[in-house]
Amino acid sequence: MTRIYFNDVVMRDGLQIEANFVPTDDKVKLVDELSECGFAKIEVTSFTSPKAIPMLRDAEEVMGRIKRVPGVEYTVLVPNLRGAERAFESKADEFNLVMSTSETHNLANLRMGREKSFAGLAEVIKYVDGRTPINVSLSTCFGCPMEGEVPQAVVEKFAQRFADLGVRGLTICDTTGMANPEQVKKMSDELQKRFPNLQLTLHFHNTRGMGLANVLAAVQSGIVRFDGSLGGLGGCPYAPGASGNISSEDAIHMLDAMGYDTGMNIPKLLQLAKELPRIVGHEVPGQVAKAGSTYTLHPEPSYVDELRRAQ
Amino acid sequence: MTRIYFNDVVMRDGLQIEANFVPTDDKVKLVDELSECGFAKIEVTSFTSPKAIPMLRDAEEVMGRIKRVPGVEYTVLVPNLRGAERAFESKADEFNLVMSTSETHNLANLRMGREKSFAGLAEVIKYVDGRTPINVSLSTCFGCPMEGEVPQAVVEKFAQRFADLGVRGLTICDTTGMANPEQVKKMSDELQKRFPNLQLTLHFHNTRGMGLANVLAAVQSGIVRFDGSLGGLGGCPYAPGASGNISSEDAIHMLDAMGYDTGMNIPKLLQLAKELPRIVGHEVPGQVAKAGSTYTLHPEPSYVDELRRAQ
Repeated sequence: MTRIYFNDVVMRDGLQIEANFVPTDDKVKLVDELSECGFAKIEVTSFTSPKAIPMLRDAEEVMGRIKRVPGVEYTVLVPNLRGAERAFESKADEFNLVMSTSETHNLANLRMGREKSFAGLAEVIKYVDGRTPINVSLSTCFGCPMEGEVPQAVVEKFAQRFADLGVRGLTICDTTGMANPEQVKKMSDELQKRFPNLQLTLHFHNTRGMGLANVLAAVQSGIVRFDGSLGGLGGCPYAPGASGNISSEDAIHMLDAMGYDTGMNIPKLLQLAKELPRIVGHEVPGQVAKAGSTYTLHPEPSYVDELRRAQ
Repeated sequence: MTRIYFNDVVMRDGLQIEANFVPTDDKVKLVDELSECGFAKIEVTSFTSPKAIPMLRDAEEVMGRIKRVPGVEYTVLVPNLRGAERAFESKADEFNLVMSTSETHNLANLRMGREKSFAGLAEVIKYVDGRTPINVSLSTCFGCPMEGEVPQAVVEKFAQRFADLGVRGLTICDTTGMANPEQVKKMSDELQKRFPNLQLTLHFHNTRGMGLANVLAAVQSGIVRFDGSLGGLGGCPYAPGASGNISSEDAIHMLDAMGYDTGMNIPKLLQLAKELPRIVGHEVPGQVAKAGSTYTLHPEPSYVDELRRAQ
């Protein structure tokens, strides 16, 4: 049975666009519960400026108070050298660096060009110097909402440059849900061939409903690592009302039903996903938490037994 | 380029559980607009008792007033002999008969056992006597919400019995969204092998988020006919708040992006899907109508050009 590894990004990617601050106590509790569900990795927070993302201003406190479960990696987003220092102090298991493969998206999102981003991240990687494993999340790999197509060759070029700097893993992100399964297959096939020693993670959004179809295309190609967000939390700033990140539990439920070993406690995961709307104060897109798993049977209407006996 | 054929079921499967009556004028207009979008088939209405499904009490009038576009098949649900008579009068291009492969679901839904259903439908098929092509939709082929597993052998048995009666097509329905892609692949492979001369259609629900992943698994297996519902209208009575039918436009958008020939006018289809919430009075689950197609680009923020020039 193929083992699949899930990284839940609800604490960072999911929470960061929420309007109302989620109290630190709730965050710590949520991370601890995610740990108990069996995630291979949890992106706990981001060491960005508290002014840039006030939701994550309690990064140090959250990292200091969570229970570290053996076998679970606690990763944090590190935007720059100052973030790396803070991440070291927090004893994060992995640093996740981010830049975009689209020049326009990088300018819009990080307010600098790609080369400046690359140089800054290269400096962080040099500073870390192998003391903590590094993952780089490449945004807009399947298309940019402003530029349109991002050629696969551009993604491969940035992947190669980071591989040359000795990173442990790369996350190939479909930041605004533009990927289709055919494109995912081509990208996954090629990157696995070129980087057999890198941990490759795929990060999909369900903005146009293709999230789980893309997961399917990726596992068919041999990918075993995925990002997901509890409840599918994390919207898309370019499309109000549209879904954002794929729901961890929906993806895990599908792969489990298909016979993959996700290493997850699915009933516990669904229970946790059900609690999320209360924590964030609104409905979330995840489906399985609403419908129940396929193993959840429903009682038959009372007239059925009567009809059955009358036959 | 492989041609894919979509049957939109919003008028029947989508509308029948809506609380508020959709006026006949709106229905006629909606069917005519669906015709213009390029659907291969449209399930227009049902010739059930007006008391059982008041929403579709205007079946005759709708069938009489719609514009018949050459190349589009107008199919109707026919539950029994009386329905078949009415369907003949309405000059429907195809009669769609329905029964369930799960005994409990058939009792719950049609208030009779499977054998009684089969006998009744066999009588309809005999009465029609080849004058109009017949399709049979088999419900709960991938699982019953009350019984759980429905063995594939049971589905194959009913498929065989209807094939023996000379039907033109079979629709294999995942009535409550229990199918997973692995199961879809097995079912699709086997049914195509056993019934090479039958029109096989797959009908998926997105109740647990797997709808488009199942479409992907089915096209990979060689299936070229699908049911979908505009906007994803048509909920699941067993899971309030959960999605029902897959959204036609989301599925078509995905297959088009993958390089399949859907024969559809996608901008027109998305425009129509956007109008649906106004017609039914509530939001619908379809994603692409909200997010725009992957080809819809967004303007860059005003500061991006300044940053670009300052580099």
